Amino acid sequence: MQKNTTKTSDAPEEGSSTRMRVEDRKEQLIEIAMRLFATKGFDGTSLRDIAEEAQITKAALYYHFPNKDALYESILVDGMRTLVNYVSAAMGKVTSPEAKVREFMLSSADYMERNRDSWIAGSNMFWFGDNAKPRTENLALRDEYEKLLRDAVKQAIDSQVFQKVDPTIASRMLLAVLNQLPRWHSPTGRLSTRQVVQQYIDMIFQGLLASNPTR
Amino acid sequence: MQKNTTKTSDAPEEGSSTRMRVEDRKEQLIEIAMRLFATKGFDGTSLRDIAEEAQITKAALYYHFPNKDALYESILVDGMRTLVNYVSAAMGKVTSPEAKVREFMLSSADYMERNRDSWIAGSNMFWFGDNAKPRTENLALRDEYEKLLRDAVKQAIDSQVFQKVDPTIASRMLLAVLNQLPRWHSPTGRLSTRQVVQQYIDMIFQGLLASNPTR
Repeated sequence: MQKNTTKTSDAPEEGSSTRMRVEDRKEQLIEIAMRLFATKGFDGTSLRDIAEEAQITKAALYYHFPNKDALYESILVDGMRTLVNYVSAAMGKVTSPEAKVREFMLSSADYMERNRDSWIAGSNMFWFGDNAKPRTENLALRDEYEKLLRDAVKQAIDSQVFQKVDPTIASRMLLAVLNQLPRWHSPTGRLSTRQVVQQYIDMIFQGLLASNPTR
Repeated sequence: MQKNTTKTSDAPEEGSSTRMRVEDRKEQLIEIAMRLFATKGFDGTSLRDIAEEAQITKAALYYHFPNKDALYESILVDGMRTLVNYVSAAMGKVTSPEAKVREFMLSSADYMERNRDSWIAGSNMFWFGDNAKPRTENLALRDEYEKLLRDAVKQAIDSQVFQKVDPTIASRMLLAVLNQLPRWHSPTGRLSTRQVVQQYIDMIFQGLLASNPTR
């Protein structure tokens, strides 16, 4: 990258970098951190590990992220915002509540397939709450994501497309099967993430029982 | 507890303790560690934290568990063995494959309700594989647990009680909703763990759709 003589940053290693350069570095650090958090866990990853992998000094890393929590938070907010926008756009392309629930699941699967590390980091956040405190912005995005599904499930129940089930419990169940998926599913396995989720949807929509006395 | 003059242990704090005493202490340490691992994470918990809470020296703790991994392993093996035995016994009381699948889910819910910390520790093991390496015994128990469900699901499909679904994917889905439950469900909430799982079973068995064109 060409050097720029206009100083726009205080980054120790990038005294003459442009604003773009700083954002690139930030993006690179987030990617490295995301991968390390996903494989070694939040507590098992040190800022030194991240700096070493990025081949920068710890001082340079501190410029971008004052501490590990700030880095973690950036990862989660970035990831959640992308997910919410992506899923929301996919649901906007269909009209029936049943199709909206389906699209929520399938587009989440697509996101998961392409952003596995970010998904795992986000999914862990609410598990180890004490170690990595999510801030308000992140919780708001998470709520927004879950609300997309819950609203579609409610609509499907209200319009009698779905049976009279508890919309919160039904949504939690659908979220659970999505969340657990990267725990056992290999991206190189015989089925893609989308194909597994498609089977989940079929099973949950139609039910496992071959004949159903209530219908 | 009465002192026993026959020395049966090298425990530094328990020079004159009986075998029973040693086992009690071990059990107490496992309980404390389980709680701390579940709330602070594996990496966030030190052997010092555990020793302090048990009001023993670190040397005494080392007598029982040479390192954190050994302690973690004991927790998981203990927990998984209890779970497998409990679920297996519950499934043995019913005969139809459909009832067996139901019992697997409900008895797992009962275990989860009573052993929340142990369930969380076990559920995390396969997530942060690098930090706490599960040994063969534990993986074998986990496989045994999952096989109980998979076999019942296969039987239900073979006997045409369940639709022709992929038994592995169906089992993974059922395990997912169980595993995720302690992530959002509060033991003091309006529904018990068993009640939530009961709703899950109804939804998954009967399907969310009010009318089903394939049947």
